[in-house]
Amino acid sequence: MTRPSDLRILAETLFADLRAAGGGSDEAPDIGVSRDSYGAGETAALAVIERTARAHGLPCHRDAAANLVVILPGAARDLPAIACGSHLDSVPRGGNYDGAAGVVAGLLALISLRASGITPRRDIHLYALRGEESAAFGRAYIGSSALFGELGADDLALTHATTGQTLSTRLADVGADLPRITRRETLLDPKSLVCWLELHIEQGPVLLARGLPLAAVTGLRGNVRHRSVLCLGEAGHSGAVPRWLRHDAVFAVADLLARLDGHWQRLIAQGHDLVMTIGVIGTDPAEHAIARIPGKVAFSFEARSDSEATLDSVHALFLAECDRVAEERGVRFIPDRRLDTRPARLDPALVGRVRAAIRGLGLADEPIASGAGHDAAVFVQAGVPSAMIFVRNAHGSHNPAEAMTIDDFMLGAEALRQCLAEGAQ
Amino acid sequence: MTRPSDLRILAETLFADLRAAGGGSDEAPDIGVSRDSYGAGETAALAVIERTARAHGLPCHRDAAANLVVILPGAARDLPAIACGSHLDSVPRGGNYDGAAGVVAGLLALISLRASGITPRRDIHLYALRGEESAAFGRAYIGSSALFGELGADDLALTHATTGQTLSTRLADVGADLPRITRRETLLDPKSLVCWLELHIEQGPVLLARGLPLAAVTGLRGNVRHRSVLCLGEAGHSGAVPRWLRHDAVFAVADLLARLDGHWQRLIAQGHDLVMTIGVIGTDPAEHAIARIPGKVAFSFEARSDSEATLDSVHALFLAECDRVAEERGVRFIPDRRLDTRPARLDPALVGRVRAAIRGLGLADEPIASGAGHDAAVFVQAGVPSAMIFVRNAHGSHNPAEAMTIDDFMLGAEALRQCLAEGAQ
Repeated sequence: MTRPSDLRILAETLFADLRAAGGGSDEAPDIGVSRDSYGAGETAALAVIERTARAHGLPCHRDAAANLVVILPGAARDLPAIACGSHLDSVPRGGNYDGAAGVVAGLLALISLRASGITPRRDIHLYALRGEESAAFGRAYIGSSALFGELGADDLALTHATTGQTLSTRLADVGADLPRITRRETLLDPKSLVCWLELHIEQGPVLLARGLPLAAVTGLRGNVRHRSVLCLGEAGHSGAVPRWLRHDAVFAVADLLARLDGHWQRLIAQGHDLVMTIGVIGTDPAEHAIARIPGKVAFSFEARSDSEATLDSVHALFLAECDRVAEERGVRFIPDRRLDTRPARLDPALVGRVRAAIRGLGLADEPIASGAGHDAAVFVQAGVPSAMIFVRNAHGSHNPAEAMTIDDFMLGAEALRQCLAEGAQ
Repeated sequence: MTRPSDLRILAETLFADLRAAGGGSDEAPDIGVSRDSYGAGETAALAVIERTARAHGLPCHRDAAANLVVILPGAARDLPAIACGSHLDSVPRGGNYDGAAGVVAGLLALISLRASGITPRRDIHLYALRGEESAAFGRAYIGSSALFGELGADDLALTHATTGQTLSTRLADVGADLPRITRRETLLDPKSLVCWLELHIEQGPVLLARGLPLAAVTGLRGNVRHRSVLCLGEAGHSGAVPRWLRHDAVFAVADLLARLDGHWQRLIAQGHDLVMTIGVIGTDPAEHAIARIPGKVAFSFEARSDSEATLDSVHALFLAECDRVAEERGVRFIPDRRLDTRPARLDPALVGRVRAAIRGLGLADEPIASGAGHDAAVFVQAGVPSAMIFVRNAHGSHNPAEAMTIDDFMLGAEALRQCLAEGAQ
């Protein structure tokens, strides 16, 4: 029988080993961990998980995309399996928990279930995925996308940010079946899985601000974007043109943004999931001056929501307000091409099971949307019903200051274990 | 007797000669005119005016700052004189009328008065000033400032934008009394003048928009500026942080500007003279991204008004709204040093005389503030009561497309003649 205290020690040991696999050290926390996608650190991390799994009697194999799969065999092995997992790569000098937390939580669940002596009805599979971060090749979710035939020739030709090696070279080097991937074969039949469960640290501050260790994820936000929207007014002498003859591009954009901010507040008050970001804005350095009415401003536009309908209505509001401001102020708005990333809908029944598990731990149940993307979105697109568990985390992600407590993690691992045990029946 | 049609032909001849003095040509209007401050074009332009003045029996001399002075002697020559004029230099590839219109109008007035055979009670002086534009030495109003001891050692050490010669070298070369200027002597006793009258093209679009050929100027706007105001919020992942946990610098600045725009509209509705310009704004290219909540925005701030009280209250509103937005949105505003240029108050009685002259021509009388600076401001600061007449002009100034019609100009010249004749009694 594996006691809870044993599991906690195992978790701490695994995180320490994974940190070491990524070149990290407790003595110099600032250097963070670097588990390069399809590189040495990631491969070492897969080995840490495989070694521990085998030591606890769990069979392992590498799938055709060179991801690690750990299996707790069920009684009826021909039934579709229940799957969990996350990724083991990291951004350069990143944090130790982004991705790895989900793999360690899955491994603890399998070890704990096996130790309890109960054989589940169906197999439980843990995936330790490779290549989720886009830092190395400029493309995210490589390891999961390869499983569903979603890597194109252009993806395989991508080169590594620092070594210049192609992704196809790296895939072959770590043992992936490059010919099948190149032919875009389905390496993992979506019908062979009943669902996908992924635990991940929250990459935002919501759980910290709410004082909650865990949350079920309602969905993965999609977004609608314009990389650049031009507002064209009319430049002029800042002293010589009165307000009624101005076509000031900066005041026009400020007016537009104030209106959009009003819509944003109303929409979230009505219960819609929505964030809006103007990450880039600027007058033209080639012609702007303190004493010149700005005739041109460029800005980016992004809205994110877990609902496609909300994204569409926010974009329609954006265009409508551009028209109103243009009409009122005699300016023109010229948006570049609309770019869409569809939201990934998580499975309501599965989300309900995660929420029940969280309540079962005596915790408040306040689900949140995921703003960042995850491998779970790839499983959703492939048709696998999915759900996610977020664990509280400070300082965002993709940096060495990323901070999850082991207490919070153990609660998350327990929630995952319960969902797997229930789903495997 | 000089007939009005003779004056019109003379005006056209003078403008053609001044255009040629600045290297301009009717065949290639795009090259504009270049009458470099204290350079060859400006000197040639002074010679054009002097030659014409002498041909019409008007005595001329160069003052101690090398400006040209044309005199219509009065009956009581010891009385303070009435003065008019403007500048003859231009920006490189500028328009032909910015400055020159005021000198030509003054010359026409003196020629016409002399031709009428009436000797005014007091002298009428026409100044063809040098060095008004800041393009050459980065300092404006050099010719008028020198007259009142307002050029400092740092001004005299300024170097020409293209030749690199110092201003003091150029002043000496054109015959200015450099030792007296260096000692900051008063070269022109303000008490020797009863007033200063300056005709100038409008550098903005107001008269064109109102369909008026002329306007009296109510005052020369001063301004209050911050070259750079920083808004500091908190950067973050654009998908992972909900609205209630954001400290978005761009939405904060948009909020601030929308509030200021509201104050602006209210203040002008109440009859205050005010323009406001955010000529420069931008997120930081070193850290901004479409998918990153902007943590930092920098922008310039400028308000202009003919009233110092209005400038002070607008600046106070600006700081108060910064505080409110900072409080509501959890951001900080850090303005750099406040820079002030005081408004120049024109003389109400003299402005009244200009307005009466405009009405006397059967024209609508709708005075406007001057947003750009003029030599008149230097005379005001020296204590000389001053007024200005604006002539309608298209396409702004400081460019070859600047466009004043001779019809409008002749109306302005006539208004100036009447003001001078009345003031000289």
